[in-house]
Amino acid sequence: MIRTTPGPRHQSVSLDELSDRFRGQKVLVTGGLGFIGSNLARALVGGGAEVTLVDSLGPRYGGNRFNVAGLEAALRIEIADMGDESILRPLIRGQNVIFNLAGQSSHIDSMEDPLTDLEINARCQLSLLEACRRESRDVRIVFASTRQLYGRPRYLPVDEEHGVAPVDVNGVNKLAGEWYHLLYGEVHGFRVTALRLTNTYGPRMRVRDARQTFLGVWLKALVRGEPFEIYGNGLQRRDFNYVDDAVAAFLLAASSEEAVGGVFNLGDASPIALRDLAELLVRLNGSGTYRFVPFPEDRRRIDIGDYVGDFSKIRHTLGWEPSISLEEGLRRSLDYYRRYGEEYW
Amino acid sequence: MIRTTPGPRHQSVSLDELSDRFRGQKVLVTGGLGFIGSNLARALVGGGAEVTLVDSLGPRYGGNRFNVAGLEAALRIEIADMGDESILRPLIRGQNVIFNLAGQSSHIDSMEDPLTDLEINARCQLSLLEACRRESRDVRIVFASTRQLYGRPRYLPVDEEHGVAPVDVNGVNKLAGEWYHLLYGEVHGFRVTALRLTNTYGPRMRVRDARQTFLGVWLKALVRGEPFEIYGNGLQRRDFNYVDDAVAAFLLAASSEEAVGGVFNLGDASPIALRDLAELLVRLNGSGTYRFVPFPEDRRRIDIGDYVGDFSKIRHTLGWEPSISLEEGLRRSLDYYRRYGEEYW
Repeated sequence: MIRTTPGPRHQSVSLDELSDRFRGQKVLVTGGLGFIGSNLARALVGGGAEVTLVDSLGPRYGGNRFNVAGLEAALRIEIADMGDESILRPLIRGQNVIFNLAGQSSHIDSMEDPLTDLEINARCQLSLLEACRRESRDVRIVFASTRQLYGRPRYLPVDEEHGVAPVDVNGVNKLAGEWYHLLYGEVHGFRVTALRLTNTYGPRMRVRDARQTFLGVWLKALVRGEPFEIYGNGLQRRDFNYVDDAVAAFLLAASSEEAVGGVFNLGDASPIALRDLAELLVRLNGSGTYRFVPFPEDRRRIDIGDYVGDFSKIRHTLGWEPSISLEEGLRRSLDYYRRYGEEYW
Repeated sequence: MIRTTPGPRHQSVSLDELSDRFRGQKVLVTGGLGFIGSNLARALVGGGAEVTLVDSLGPRYGGNRFNVAGLEAALRIEIADMGDESILRPLIRGQNVIFNLAGQSSHIDSMEDPLTDLEINARCQLSLLEACRRESRDVRIVFASTRQLYGRPRYLPVDEEHGVAPVDVNGVNKLAGEWYHLLYGEVHGFRVTALRLTNTYGPRMRVRDARQTFLGVWLKALVRGEPFEIYGNGLQRRDFNYVDDAVAAFLLAASSEEAVGGVFNLGDASPIALRDLAELLVRLNGSGTYRFVPFPEDRRRIDIGDYVGDFSKIRHTLGWEPSISLEEGLRRSLDYYRRYGEEYW
């Protein structure tokens, strides 16, 4: 189980209050039409920030114009490849904060097409930092990193002191991307923070396939009345964050001096085995069927087994902790895809 | 001091005997006109291997045609960018062994021009592995990695269990390059070994500037009767391997089943403070002057302080240890640059 220790609680700070900290600020969100990026953008617009989104809208990634439906007039949207410095530099100029969420998240794709993964998760990150070095060294940057860097856990829960040992190309490139950020902090004085996200879920996630998370595929199947599959025996435990809690962590990090230069795990104190998650989903949905199938070979080779993140560092330092229970978060997710699923299938 | 423990000794296996293991084999050396690559090529040709060198001959790197002077008829040389898959795939086809030494080694350049460092040290490595995945999955690969991955040592001597924490872009990209190799071993069954080199020196190193090592600049200055500079107080300790010992490690690794999948430090049991190294060089050269200057700011920010590698893993597993003393190696190096310096200035 997660070690729990007393510390400030973020329940006292609502998402609205956090967003309000950015009122009047110029904020750039990379990957801004994607899952977490678009939820972050909604919060920021609600708080009165001047928000620019940049997104490649690549067909294999999370970008979806519907994710900002109704907000278009309150946002600036640039459809562009982040690796293109001539586009990036003018976008960065004058920004106060960059939430850097652009990334390729499919582990399987990273093994099949590793050079594209490198392009997005490593080279584009370095391009962004170089553009900042030329345009805006004092911009505040929060980078979306991942628990994938840790590879197969050597102990649970995994804290930030756990060694890094990625098991797939995606993990190596995301690690390089994170370290470029930290290095630019150390060497060039950039004000950066890296959040190592665990499984994040909720409205606006990609559910068309498992490129963002297997949970997307499960949700889609449930809403459409189709069966879904559990790989292996379903005893693998994972922790899940509802997207609003992840968004809160980004807002908190970007508005806290204590976060500068830091790396923080997100996580949840109630990990769940995948078979129990399947049961919970079927119950919440009111119906649903699933079956156990052997791990496909390409997934088995890069599977990390149980993972539970220790998030006590961010709890102590910034007062963050998850506020939405898995049950509540899944309920909201099911509702969302029941209403808007057609935009995501 | 280095922990010493009993184990097989490689003095019993000469460079000639090691080279002989590759008789009749098809061997590709990337970075083959460079410092270590060309010394390796000489040994392999001597042992009767069928050797192909690929090198970009980029002006900022270690490649120098003079490094294979007299051997041209016994080698195939391709001047090419390793990132070009259309060139790489036919070169790889049918090879038994690849010594993968192509790299960008300047830490300062990696901070000034990080995208080029990424291109060479990360993307080209992934390209090579992808080309192997298509052409030749059972080729034996030995990758030239670096102690730079460890960053500032948390303890000395640094063994392979020491965490990685690169302090410059070069270190991040070299780490990515190494991990791609290990991943392709784990996931695709490639037979790979990574050697983490420390300061390597000797004939055929680049001495025009400090891009390979500061020691090159010192040697050049001594031979030309010019003064040289020590940054800081000169108390930083480092370990040095003579190039023939590094070459022996590559040959040993590529011809040992026990090395497959492994990462091994090289190192030397007699680290030396830089001011003592300067004194030793002046004595061996018969004359010379140097002065202490403050660390240039760009170097200070990425300097790693003392470094001493623990090489007991490769000693135990493969029986490697250095056989050429620093004094003997420096003597040979001075002799070489006195004779051929004009080809290197």
